[in-house]
This record gives sequence, structure tokens and C-alpha cells, in this order.
Amino acid sequence: MTTGHSTFSPLPSLSEITEADLPAIAMGAAFLGTGGGGDPYIGRLLATSAIRKHGPIRVVAPDRLGEDDFAIAAAMMGTPSVIVEKLPTIAELERALAALERRLERKASVILPAEMGGLNSMVPLAIAAQRGLPVIDGDGMGRAFPELQMVTFTVHGHNASPLALTNEGGECVMIEAPTSAQTEVLARTLIVALGGSVMIACYPMSGHAARDCVVPGTLSLAHAIGSAILRGRRNGDPYAELLACLSRSPYYKHHALLGEGRIVEVNRRIEGGWTTGTCRIESARGESPDAARDVLEVVFRNEHLVARRNGATLAIVPDLIIVLDAETAEPITTESLKYGQRVKVVATSAAACMRTPAALAVFGPHKFGLDEPFIPIETRLSTPN
Amino acid sequence: MTTGHSTFSPLPSLSEITEADLPAIAMGAAFLGTGGGGDPYIGRLLATSAIRKHGPIRVVAPDRLGEDDFAIAAAMMGTPSVIVEKLPTIAELERALAALERRLERKASVILPAEMGGLNSMVPLAIAAQRGLPVIDGDGMGRAFPELQMVTFTVHGHNASPLALTNEGGECVMIEAPTSAQTEVLARTLIVALGGSVMIACYPMSGHAARDCVVPGTLSLAHAIGSAILRGRRNGDPYAELLACLSRSPYYKHHALLGEGRIVEVNRRIEGGWTTGTCRIESARGESPDAARDVLEVVFRNEHLVARRNGATLAIVPDLIIVLDAETAEPITTESLKYGQRVKVVATSAAACMRTPAALAVFGPHKFGLDEPFIPIETRLSTPN
Repeated sequence: MTTGHSTFSPLPSLSEITEADLPAIAMGAAFLGTGGGGDPYIGRLLATSAIRKHGPIRVVAPDRLGEDDFAIAAAMMGTPSVIVEKLPTIAELERALAALERRLERKASVILPAEMGGLNSMVPLAIAAQRGLPVIDGDGMGRAFPELQMVTFTVHGHNASPLALTNEGGECVMIEAPTSAQTEVLARTLIVALGGSVMIACYPMSGHAARDCVVPGTLSLAHAIGSAILRGRRNGDPYAELLACLSRSPYYKHHALLGEGRIVEVNRRIEGGWTTGTCRIESARGESPDAARDVLEVVFRNEHLVARRNGATLAIVPDLIIVLDAETAEPITTESLKYGQRVKVVATSAAACMRTPAALAVFGPHKFGLDEPFIPIETRLSTPN
Repeated sequence: MTTGHSTFSPLPSLSEITEADLPAIAMGAAFLGTGGGGDPYIGRLLATSAIRKHGPIRVVAPDRLGEDDFAIAAAMMGTPSVIVEKLPTIAELERALAALERRLERKASVILPAEMGGLNSMVPLAIAAQRGLPVIDGDGMGRAFPELQMVTFTVHGHNASPLALTNEGGECVMIEAPTSAQTEVLARTLIVALGGSVMIACYPMSGHAARDCVVPGTLSLAHAIGSAILRGRRNGDPYAELLACLSRSPYYKHHALLGEGRIVEVNRRIEGGWTTGTCRIESARGESPDAARDVLEVVFRNEHLVARRNGATLAIVPDLIIVLDAETAEPITTESLKYGQRVKVVATSAAACMRTPAALAVFGPHKFGLDEPFIPIETRLSTPN
């Protein structure tokens, strides 16, 4: 196990996104997706097509947002297992954004990423390019989460609604509810009736409100992490580059390789709109067939929630747990976990603003039905188990 | 059995509705509710309170509507069994109407009743009084039906959406879907998540569109039918007055007393938002205990769908089947049917515009899963069975 404490210079920030940046952002977002968030590849198709048509996207640092700016979050919402089979379109997303703007009688001046993990790293880029609007370098979690209200925006008192939701069948639904959690319930209910996934526009807020509640810099971080993995593949050691990059990052600098081995069991079911289950990874401690075997279990609900070795918790949500291909460091989504795959499991710290008592009340372990407290990964790493 | 062919003068038309008219309208609407539509009593409380506060309601004949008029339908939507326990408010209804007006950037100039059967006869009156707007003397069926798209408005190509839906929890959802049937699916899905019933504003249309697609005169008809029952009770023979009134009506003039007896079985379940089941009524043909017994079975899904005697169909949707208290002629809703009740069962013709092939494609027997054709009650009456 290694835990990184950076002595390097900070990672670079993006000022513009071209088509050439998308593979790295998508790769980094797959990592930050922690198994969920949907395969970024689908979103990348949308973003690529929009950038080719409309040109590069300007990236705005949160502290450069003005009070006159008006930010709207754009995302895809649904079951990852469905999203991979039901290709979204920019037209659907545009209809959602336009419906929300009409409801609010105000146009978005900047696009707010809600979730930098998985598919939803790309959806804001697609609509930003399409509209010629800048995108904020930041999001509501610096990872992926399965529910609408599980964002720093909610922690800061912002409401997901009014929320516009569109489907490829021409449906458009505008939800207004007193809380983001109620909005989530209504949207989730509709998603099932609408075939499993929809496009949404939500969390409208002023530029200063966005500045004050986003996890800043996560778009640049996704790009840096993805670049590290891609560069490492060319150099022949993607893990060295990945872990070095994480060490230099402001949020993910505490990290650990929890284990390496073969997937010996995957239990996965789709229920209530979630992809839930467990994955067990067995690794030999030595070369002999008689050597003691470690069993690493990863529990997921869209995203990985907790990793345990031989029953002892190693890392828990909102810290990040990522299962990657042992050779290529390709992050593996929970719906792609397969028996016999050789994988490595990495865990990292989450941003400090994701670990406050107020934040844990929205997306801590208890919110996922886990009956154990959040303990930061760096605390666990300093305690032998 | 009797079938009426009117030689009387036409029934009077309402020009204004005062508090004193509400008991008769509610009673007539309970009759037209054909067992469903919700207990009008709940809606009567709303309408009474609104008229007391804001004064009488002007009634507009459909042929007096101008092209500049803008009609919006207002209704309650949900499971009757829930509605009786969850009192609606005018504020919820006002929020739905205001949300739809804001979406359409146009204010309603007249309120359009969608369903003259049951509770929804009263809901338009409540909001019309509250807003100081006239109400149209007409509706989308001249009875009650369980689904949003089951109205003449749909038969004429109008869309239920945009549809605004509100709940007492402060939620407001605006649904836009290409067809009324899709709107129904989405609204019904939400209703379950919202506790079983909601207020809706929908089917926005111009005055001429409303004129051309409503079943005209049904508000006056509900009033006339209810008045007949109430007058008959005072005279000691509510059935004589009721049947005489039906004979004078333009739509319900073909009618029959299908049977009289005691309820010997009620099977009722609430599933998928519906109150579905069957009611069996046994009647002696003679006085002797050995006399042959007729069994009349009424099948319902919110409303009564089909009546059969000893297995042979006597009347079928969209014709009206009403179960009434044998003494008082009080119409009994499907959720109030009780073992041992002494009842009479009346069936009547539906309006001609409710029986066209296009209309039957929207709310004919097949739409309720009944595998038999629609045969008008007057055809059945002229054929001995």
C-alpha cells in the first residue's frame, strides 16, 4: 500500500476543450465514476459530434463566475445498464435545457457539470459546445453518485428543481418539488415509465452560488487523471503515472492500491432503477498454491460503495473505490465486471467538502444503507489491519 | 324492462350555478359516475366553499364559445379509494391551473369540465368560482372514465398535455407528451409516488375547439337527473322521476332497469391505481324460496364496465351502468358496494358521439380488456335474451 503526499507542482487547469482532450477527460471521468455514472464512451460520442460542429468549449474556473452568470446543470439520469443500450441525443438534451430556460424565463450563460464521474462528465460538454456556452471547471461531487440530491449543491441548500426531463419519445416533464430528494423520487419514478434513462436540466443557480458550492477544478482533474493513464500505457506503466497524478491532486492525494487479483464472483441485479450487487476479488499472497488467499469484496449500487478485505472495511463512500484492468488501468464499470477478469482496486480520498458532517448527511454511508461510519481512507491507511 | 322514447319537452339548461344547485348536480354526477369518478361529496365541499366566497358561477353553452375563448380542463386524478381519504384543496387546483397558464403564456377564459361523472363534476365548479370564470355546459364523456385520454377531446385529436399536476406536498409537475395516452402513463406513474391523488389542469384548447368536441349540455343534465332523484324522494318514488328524466334526456333516453336484488358478493382490489372487481346481485323472480334466482354480475374498473345476467351481457361500456340504493335511488360508488345491500341496477345509452368507431377505439370495451363488441343498449333491449 502506498499513500501519496504531494511534493510536485499542482496539476494544470484546462482553459479550453477541443476534440483532442475528450479521450483523456472520458478516461479520467471513468476513473472518477468509481464503477458507476455510466460509460463515458456514450457521452463522448455526443461531445465529439458537438465540438466538431460548433468548435472548442471555453472552460471557466468557478472563481471567475460573475453574479450575473446563470448556471444550469445538464445530465443524463437513469440506470447505467440501460444507458449503454439507449443512445441519447443532443436534441433531447437541448429540449430539456430549453424547457427549463422557458420555465425560468432566463437563458443559461454557463453549463454546470453535476457529476464528473462517468457519462455525465461528457453531457455538459456536449450541450456547452452545441450552445456555444462555457462550461464550469467543477462539479457537485468530484466523482459519481446514484441520486440527484447527492451533490454539494444540495449540501449548500440549492434545489434540483425546477427540473426538466426529456426522453427520445418527445416527452418533456418539468418537476417542481420543495426538496431535491422529492425531485429525485418523482424523476426516478418517471424514468422507469420512460424506458430507463432521460436527459435532465436542473439545479439552476447564479454564478456566485455555483462558485460557492462546486467542487472546483474537477474537469481539469478528470483530464489530468485520464492523461496520466493514457501516457502510462504508452510508457508501459499506467499505474505509476496514475498514482503519481493522484498524489499531485488536491482531493485524491490520499490513495491506496487495495488489492490485485481475479474476479471470482459477481452478483449483480437491476432493481428499482439501480444496478446493485457485489464483486469478489481473490488474490494470492504468495506464489505457492497453498498460500493464504485474500478476498476483497466490493459492494456497489451503481457506484462502488465499500471495499472490504476478509470482512474488514478498507474504504467507504464518499471516498472513491475504483476497479481497474490490471494491465491497462482501464476503469471498469459495475455493469462490465466479469468473472475471471484480472483487476486492481484503488481507493482515494474525496474532496474535503465531500466529507463534512453536512455532506455525509446527504451522501455518507448511512444514505446507502451501510451501517458503519465514514472513516477517511488516510485514517485507515495509518492504522494496520 | 322499460325503454324510454321521449315525447316530453327538452330538459332545462342551467345559466348559472348557485350553492342551492350543488346537491342536485352532485347527485346527478354520482349517477353519471357509473360507480366511479370518486364521491362527488368531496368535490361539493370545495365548490360550496368557493361559491360562498366568490358568488354564483356563470354557465356557458358550448355553441356560445368564441374563438378567442381559451378553455382549460380542471380535474382531480387518482384512485377513488384514496381520494375519499385525502381531502383536496382549491389551492392545489389553483396551483395546477396557474402553472399551466404560465407554461402556455395564456390565461383560461373558461373552465372545461372533463368528466361530468362523480367528483370531477364539482372540481371545475370550484375553480370557476374561485377564478370568477364561467364553466362550459358540457364535458368530455357525459359519464366517468378511469383514464385521462378517455374523452371526446382525444377522439377529436386534442392532447391532454401540457398537463400540470399538483399535490398537497407542494409538488408541481408539468407533463408534455406527444399523445394523451402517453401523458396518462406518466401522470399515473407520478400519482402513485405522490400518494394516490393529485389535481390536474390539462386539455388546453380554443373556444371553438371546445365547442366542437364536448358532449354538450351534460352539466345541465347532471342537474336535471339529480333534481329528479331528489324530487322523487320527496314524492315517494325516486325511480319514477329518475326514469322519466332519463327519457327526456338527449343521451340517456334508452334505459332499462336491469335488475333488483341483494348484493351477495363483492370482489374488490386496488391495483395499479385502479379499484377493480366484480359485484354479484341476486334477485328472486318470484316470492317462493324455490323460485329461480337471477344473478346479475357487474364488472368494474373504477367505473362499471359490463353487466351480465346469468352470464349474458346486458349492457357494456361506454353505455352507462349504475347501481343504486333500491329505496332512495342513491347512486353507489364501486368502493361503497357492500354485501347485503338492496340495490337496483339501471343501464342507459351513452351520447351518440361516444359510440362512433373513433370513440370506441379510445374507450370501447376492448380498451378495458373486454373481449366482446360494443352493442348499444337499445339494440339489446329490442332483442329478447
